Amino acid sequence: MFPVSTICAISTPAGTGGIAVIRLSGDMAIPLVDKVYRSPVKEKKLIDQAANTLHFGTLFKGNELLDEVVVSLFRKPHSYTGEDVVEISCHGSTYVQQQILQLMIDSGAELAQPGEFTQRAFLNGKMDLSQAEAVADLIASGNSAAHRVALNQMRGGFSAEISQLRDQLLHFTTLIELELDFSEEDVEFADRTLLIGLSRKIDTLLRKLIDSFRLGNAIKNGIPVAIVGETNVGKSTLLNALLNEEKAIVSEIHGTTRDVIEDTVNLDGVLFRFFDTAGLRNTTDTIENLGIERSYRKLGQATIVLLVLDLTSAAETNLRRIREIRKKIVNQHLILVANKSDLVSEGVRSELASLTLKKNESLVFIAAKAKENLTGLIRLMKDTVALDKVQPEDVIVTNIRHYEALTRALEAIDRTIEGLQTNLSGEFLSQDIRECLHYLGAITGQITTDEVLGNIFKHFCIGK
Amino acid sequence: MFPVSTICAISTPAGTGGIAVIRLSGDMAIPLVDKVYRSPVKEKKLIDQAANTLHFGTLFKGNELLDEVVVSLFRKPHSYTGEDVVEISCHGSTYVQQQILQLMIDSGAELAQPGEFTQRAFLNGKMDLSQAEAVADLIASGNSAAHRVALNQMRGGFSAEISQLRDQLLHFTTLIELELDFSEEDVEFADRTLLIGLSRKIDTLLRKLIDSFRLGNAIKNGIPVAIVGETNVGKSTLLNALLNEEKAIVSEIHGTTRDVIEDTVNLDGVLFRFFDTAGLRNTTDTIENLGIERSYRKLGQATIVLLVLDLTSAAETNLRRIREIRKKIVNQHLILVANKSDLVSEGVRSELASLTLKKNESLVFIAAKAKENLTGLIRLMKDTVALDKVQPEDVIVTNIRHYEALTRALEAIDRTIEGLQTNLSGEFLSQDIRECLHYLGAITGQITTDEVLGNIFKHFCIGK
Repeated sequence: MFPVSTICAISTPAGTGGIAVIRLSGDMAIPLVDKVYRSPVKEKKLIDQAANTLHFGTLFKGNELLDEVVVSLFRKPHSYTGEDVVEISCHGSTYVQQQILQLMIDSGAELAQPGEFTQRAFLNGKMDLSQAEAVADLIASGNSAAHRVALNQMRGGFSAEISQLRDQLLHFTTLIELELDFSEEDVEFADRTLLIGLSRKIDTLLRKLIDSFRLGNAIKNGIPVAIVGETNVGKSTLLNALLNEEKAIVSEIHGTTRDVIEDTVNLDGVLFRFFDTAGLRNTTDTIENLGIERSYRKLGQATIVLLVLDLTSAAETNLRRIREIRKKIVNQHLILVANKSDLVSEGVRSELASLTLKKNESLVFIAAKAKENLTGLIRLMKDTVALDKVQPEDVIVTNIRHYEALTRALEAIDRTIEGLQTNLSGEFLSQDIRECLHYLGAITGQITTDEVLGNIFKHFCIGK
Repeated sequence: MFPVSTICAISTPAGTGGIAVIRLSGDMAIPLVDKVYRSPVKEKKLIDQAANTLHFGTLFKGNELLDEVVVSLFRKPHSYTGEDVVEISCHGSTYVQQQILQLMIDSGAELAQPGEFTQRAFLNGKMDLSQAEAVADLIASGNSAAHRVALNQMRGGFSAEISQLRDQLLHFTTLIELELDFSEEDVEFADRTLLIGLSRKIDTLLRKLIDSFRLGNAIKNGIPVAIVGETNVGKSTLLNALLNEEKAIVSEIHGTTRDVIEDTVNLDGVLFRFFDTAGLRNTTDTIENLGIERSYRKLGQATIVLLVLDLTSAAETNLRRIREIRKKIVNQHLILVANKSDLVSEGVRSELASLTLKKNESLVFIAAKAKENLTGLIRLMKDTVALDKVQPEDVIVTNIRHYEALTRALEAIDRTIEGLQTNLSGEFLSQDIRECLHYLGAITGQITTDEVLGNIFKHFCIGK
């Protein structure tokens, strides 16, 4: 099922620009371009040129000049796809781009499928599957944290480590399966102590990776933040100030925000996903009570809970809300957001500031309407997730497919460890190890199917 | 005023794609990229690499990895701008693009102004001004005719010829001005017969170029087509069928299209600009009469007039309209569009087909509502302008700035010829020739000002 055709696509963003790039990959990439390329140097052919060189020239459709271009030559295996690759840098009119693409198709190239260049890179062993997936994540990344994690994964990330442990495990299972052939002789080729050691090592790595998914998912899809608080304390005003747009309804009437509104916003390089929630007010309004119920349920999904307090309210009201919310907090970070600080005296602020905070709690004074100290709040939120402290070499799982495979692999390795401790027969042991091997291999693509590949690459853009 | 800074910009279209290209130009282009580039080959520096080569590597912002890239090196004068040029091909996320652009600016490059790369190409003598202008036209070109004309102009077009004639004229004016120094001796250094010959040659070229502007402008902005005819004959239906959209109001009530509607559409590779006009009906409605007045006035601006006839109407009505419109036609091409041909007998069609057509007239039978034979009409319209017959080497002026300069130059050269014939004194002759030289030089940019350059390049995209 190895590709044999030569594919082509426009690789630069859609639309008009200064220049655009049409990319070809495959055995015929260079000869196909040679058919329509003319060099200002007489008799010069691209096929005779060295790898990694640039060539000015013109492209002709029959006798009609199409464009002046610069052609980049890459030769297998030293190219993105591992095949011969040609990149044609042309003038960036959509008309010219389309004409050149059509010209290459007329010359015998096939229009590339989404992600087909990267898929070929994977099939030709230039990268493993998790690295290939990271290419799409890298292109989609819109903030520094997502970019850093995707780039790290693309450059190897955890796949080298997984691959290595998997090879060791594969060695053991081969030995165990050999024992089965000699089952009547009761021999042990596979050293059980070493196997337990290896399994525990795999177990540790898998747990670390699975744990990282909470953060990885937050980086990719936004860190979930729940905004809660008494009605009319300024939750919607705060959210709007943060979003810098008027999506939530802001009103002076109590209890206007009945639905949980979700919005993602990039604050200082980190993506946050906000749930604006209904106010935590005692009410007889059934619909509003449903909203409050939802607010509490959403807390469990949040990494950060912002409890917005109105400093102009009675201190006792605020303290009661703090007590209430503390009961709902499990391992989220609670930020007490003391709003309307511009409307009260220093005394009021000091009183709240004297509150003893728990380990996972912070307090910040703001004035949402006047947009005072929003940066202080944002800094606190960023510190909470400590994305800045994510090191380039930190391995973080962001991909749900990887997360699921890791979880299954962990289950299998845990059964293996248990089996080893209970002297389970080689037959059953081998089955658990095989299952672990399968899921580890699925991550890196050592084990894969056309269906899995199809699902992964269809989400790529054409031209990558 | 020669540029000394090193400029950088994203040269590919805005947005997310497989890859994007950041371009730098200037003396420091290669060292600036070297500061942040790391090769997988130890100690490898871009500055030591040959021109026209490609280099894989990584870009670092301090110790933070930004992206894996491929760097293209071009060395002066063999580059687009005539300076050292580096193109960084990176992953096409907007985040990565922005980060790399910022990195280059932080390293010491300046963000390029719109068209600054091409402006430098002009200032460094890589192309003349009319060629530089053609680069923007080429990028904006949306059909084959506009593309062909822009490409031809970019590759030299008429500028070489103008430049050569201008040099000869310059030689003569030098001689004439030398005569002025010896005015008391009544000598003639400049051979008047040769000068008349040269002036006539310039006159012929200028007239040819000026004449081409009508076509050139049509290619660039669309060939103006007026649709006229009795009310309710199907003008709007025809226009809609051609535009394939519902912009004009189509209605069964007579006289609904009161305003002159303009729309451009690319038909089979040629851009047409349609004026749908009010029906040519005798009416007492003042507003409608104004519309009819406008219809007739628009005829003068059209290259093609489509007179739509309703075959289901009395033959005499149609013949009267043909007579009327013929009186208004000067040198436009008139196409009689016999509509609703699907609703009448062969006899009705034959009767109209027997009409004697003039040289600049054609007749076509269509059914606009049923979309029958629209291709026949489109073919006729295309034949009329004969854009397909435009040869790649045909010189066509599309630029209003060039058109104006050519017109002024023609006036000056005609005064020169007249002056030569009437033995005008060298002093006045020299003045006319100098004026001609000025306008010819303005086209190619041999004579220019910062203001002119500013006006030209501000319409470019950034990165070209």
